Amino acid sequence: MTTLVFGHKSPDTDSTGSPIIWAWYMNEVQGVPAKPVLLGEPNTEAAFMLQRWSLDKPEIIEDVADGQACVVVDTNNPAELPANINGADVRAIIDHHKLVGGLETRGPIEVTIRPVACTATIMHDLIGADMDKMPEAIKCAMLTCILSDTLEFRSPTTTDHDREVAEKLAAELGISIPDYAEEMFAAKSDISAFSDAELLRMDSKEYEVDGVKFRVSVLETTSPATVLNRKDSLMEAMKAVAEEDGVDQVLLFVVDILNEESTLIVPNDLVRTVAKKSFGAEAEGDTVALPGVVSRKKQIIPNLKV
Amino acid sequence: MTTLVFGHKSPDTDSTGSPIIWAWYMNEVQGVPAKPVLLGEPNTEAAFMLQRWSLDKPEIIEDVADGQACVVVDTNNPAELPANINGADVRAIIDHHKLVGGLETRGPIEVTIRPVACTATIMHDLIGADMDKMPEAIKCAMLTCILSDTLEFRSPTTTDHDREVAEKLAAELGISIPDYAEEMFAAKSDISAFSDAELLRMDSKEYEVDGVKFRVSVLETTSPATVLNRKDSLMEAMKAVAEEDGVDQVLLFVVDILNEESTLIVPNDLVRTVAKKSFGAEAEGDTVALPGVVSRKKQIIPNLKV
Repeated sequence: MTTLVFGHKSPDTDSTGSPIIWAWYMNEVQGVPAKPVLLGEPNTEAAFMLQRWSLDKPEIIEDVADGQACVVVDTNNPAELPANINGADVRAIIDHHKLVGGLETRGPIEVTIRPVACTATIMHDLIGADMDKMPEAIKCAMLTCILSDTLEFRSPTTTDHDREVAEKLAAELGISIPDYAEEMFAAKSDISAFSDAELLRMDSKEYEVDGVKFRVSVLETTSPATVLNRKDSLMEAMKAVAEEDGVDQVLLFVVDILNEESTLIVPNDLVRTVAKKSFGAEAEGDTVALPGVVSRKKQIIPNLKV
Repeated sequence: MTTLVFGHKSPDTDSTGSPIIWAWYMNEVQGVPAKPVLLGEPNTEAAFMLQRWSLDKPEIIEDVADGQACVVVDTNNPAELPANINGADVRAIIDHHKLVGGLETRGPIEVTIRPVACTATIMHDLIGADMDKMPEAIKCAMLTCILSDTLEFRSPTTTDHDREVAEKLAAELGISIPDYAEEMFAAKSDISAFSDAELLRMDSKEYEVDGVKFRVSVLETTSPATVLNRKDSLMEAMKAVAEEDGVDQVLLFVVDILNEESTLIVPNDLVRTVAKKSFGAEAEGDTVALPGVVSRKKQIIPNLKV
């Protein structure tokens, strides 16, 4: 049976690239038949990565069959995985998020979770000396994942080790990190093809704080003005998205990658209170700037209060 | 703050030795203050290991305080850990059991789970080149853990890698594996100091099958006759232990390490049915032999039916 390798339901660059990296390793080094798949459409930056390095776009799957052999990467949260994940046969997990609980396995498996910024960094270490055999295009995907998850080393999730691995790869590949990151972020910032609802769901996780359910969405961009130009219709779309998804409120943080700050859109008093209590920020109009805030994992979620 | 390193609530050799190994590594190599502790009295084989290599017996703790830094080894099951484990700050998990779910962490942590027989084998690999710095007594503990969990390579959980690591350690230490394993198993087989209830709880895990709650106890011994001589009083004690622990039935498998078989004690028709349905074994009297059955993880639990 071919093992399916996949990340989470909102495929960003790491959740698109890491399955490709790991399936290569399983096929070519471990000799275990494996296939990377996606649980949804890749975001613009992930799509850019595939095209830029001529990598095949992995097939999108809806669910996994009972007993299907799987490797889960870039998440350990059953809510971000196929509905039947606990019916499947999860063989390994490689991740860099906190342990959520809820994922169960049939037998002892390989689980590797490390507190670094990016799944691809962990894979680099697990692959070890076999990195020598990795094709250039897949090394390019690995570099792209690390630059994406670290926002070119700007995110506070970045560890020295993420930077070290990215710099080593870039040197080997003859890629200039600043030039390439600029290309990546420009691709990510082109949101013209997406509806408001798509933007709100693109990089989004649900969290409950004191009984209030939030969909916490971030949009990382080098051009926040392009997003904020659509503010009014985004605020309209928030209501519909919240209702459809069964949450109380969508929070949209527009992350300005280059200036290392966020703008939170403030459609109502609930979000005004969130801005005040969570970040000490007084929203005057319908947006509020949050200087220094770029990471949902390290800065937004741990501070969220209502 | 000193990080506490501990295994599960019924400290066998691996759950006693692995905290000692890892606390050494944290203190001496990583430079992070750490202390091995136990969640209960070590079993006879674990106590033998401590005495044989002049290792201090770790302090026994009752629970962990809110925010206490912890490293959890040899389990990932909250039911086998201190009551307040999800209030503590779990920094790392090193384990070789299936993922149970239920343990949550505050942030991204180091989780390493590998499908090998013994936690100490995983630690050997994680420690890598720093094994050179490890004192002999701690290497002896590492070897003891592997020989214990693999029943000197007889258990079907044994991987080539467990054997490889144990043989390398034994060669370095100038220890004869057969002679040393005989000493260990003799220590484990001396049950004279334990009450019947203590024997039933010594190496025991709770499992539910089709609504029936079992306490599945194993006693690994080179002298099954010594245990079976106490059969009548053990059967009496089963009722009291089941009632006190809120389970329907205690199952006691007396594992004959050297002959690689188990004897299941059959106090009633429920257990007679379990023997028949799970192992195809017809119990005539109040015991039944199960040839080849030595591993709870690989052979008993996956087959349990009522």
